[in-house]
Amino acid sequence: MIPSYAKIRQAKRASDDPEDLNAILDAGLVGHVGFLSEGRPMVMPMAYARLGETLYIHGASKTRIAGLDGCAVCLTVTELTGLVIARSGFHHSVNYRSAVVHATARKVTGAEFEAALTAITDHLLPGRTAEIRPMTPQERKATGVVALDVLHASVKQRSGPPVDDVKDLESGLWGGVVPVTTGLGAGVADAHTPEGAAEPDSLSAARRRFA
Amino acid sequence: MIPSYAKIRQAKRASDDPEDLNAILDAGLVGHVGFLSEGRPMVMPMAYARLGETLYIHGASKTRIAGLDGCAVCLTVTELTGLVIARSGFHHSVNYRSAVVHATARKVTGAEFEAALTAITDHLLPGRTAEIRPMTPQERKATGVVALDVLHASVKQRSGPPVDDVKDLESGLWGGVVPVTTGLGAGVADAHTPEGAAEPDSLSAARRRFA
Repeated sequence: MIPSYAKIRQAKRASDDPEDLNAILDAGLVGHVGFLSEGRPMVMPMAYARLGETLYIHGASKTRIAGLDGCAVCLTVTELTGLVIARSGFHHSVNYRSAVVHATARKVTGAEFEAALTAITDHLLPGRTAEIRPMTPQERKATGVVALDVLHASVKQRSGPPVDDVKDLESGLWGGVVPVTTGLGAGVADAHTPEGAAEPDSLSAARRRFA
Repeated sequence: MIPSYAKIRQAKRASDDPEDLNAILDAGLVGHVGFLSEGRPMVMPMAYARLGETLYIHGASKTRIAGLDGCAVCLTVTELTGLVIARSGFHHSVNYRSAVVHATARKVTGAEFEAALTAITDHLLPGRTAEIRPMTPQERKATGVVALDVLHASVKQRSGPPVDDVKDLESGLWGGVVPVTTGLGAGVADAHTPEGAAEPDSLSAARRRFA
């Protein structure tokens, strides 16, 4: 059996479709943000959110993140979906989808600041902001928000079975894909939660993302 | 109930313990590698492995990765372990552990090249290299391996319940932690796998990591 070339071509593909990009960004849990720090590349895991074509990250006002205004930033979001087990080390791979966004950071204030924080809170827990009290002026002061104005974005994804060399297919070895699954476990209420208090609706909404 | 300051202090902590660093690096599935590309920060998801105090990444010989020799690189590995649901947006968080490694890339040849590729293949599937045929000279030629000689590494981790403002604890809202779980699903054998062929032992070993 010879692997079809169509399959090979489709196995690892780049996409320019904004819908693919947005789907990856909206499904991601954390992003990895790259920037220059004292002349060296620095990569930090961060919460983020998308509003239209702009991404937002936040941090304490005094951190490096809040000081990124005007700087070049790369935000990468990766979802690992499978281990690809082939008959040779060379053809082992992983299935995944990832978005790499190159952007310029811009410090955000006013209404955009409010909208961005709502979006970041609601990214992991859809609708969460409406369930809790508003931010206090002190909390606003302690928080820095940075917009990432997108210069260029790219999507890569691999799916499907291994693509082995034809001569290795007679090895009799097991080959295929092992799905990597991500889910939410049972919530563990803290000591301050009243007896019988229900989990928030936003958590139910978050669970539906993984269903 | 007032949250103890001991708990607040422990909630988000940095570690200088090499054992913590190695545990995160060894448990991670993919890393996010940051480097400069045409003067801009670039972050790519990549397979990696650790051998002693050196990390290794690889790529096709002709890619940017193989050309990183001598360059500053940051490799970040993050494990998201929980959503932290608080009574205010400000105190929402995630539980995680992450390693940020600053290094200088060094192109690798000879015995170190072989050892690094074995380690990368075996990182996700422990013992996999011993189950499959050796690399061919052609495959070696097509593969570039880069060692990351570590200059500085840092570990951050957050665990435990939300740390709310005392005045928010009377809200009656549910607060706590929702575990984020990662696992391996049932393997899907490809069309070239003979009837009755068993999944490799290395996959069983990989499954034990998630048990």
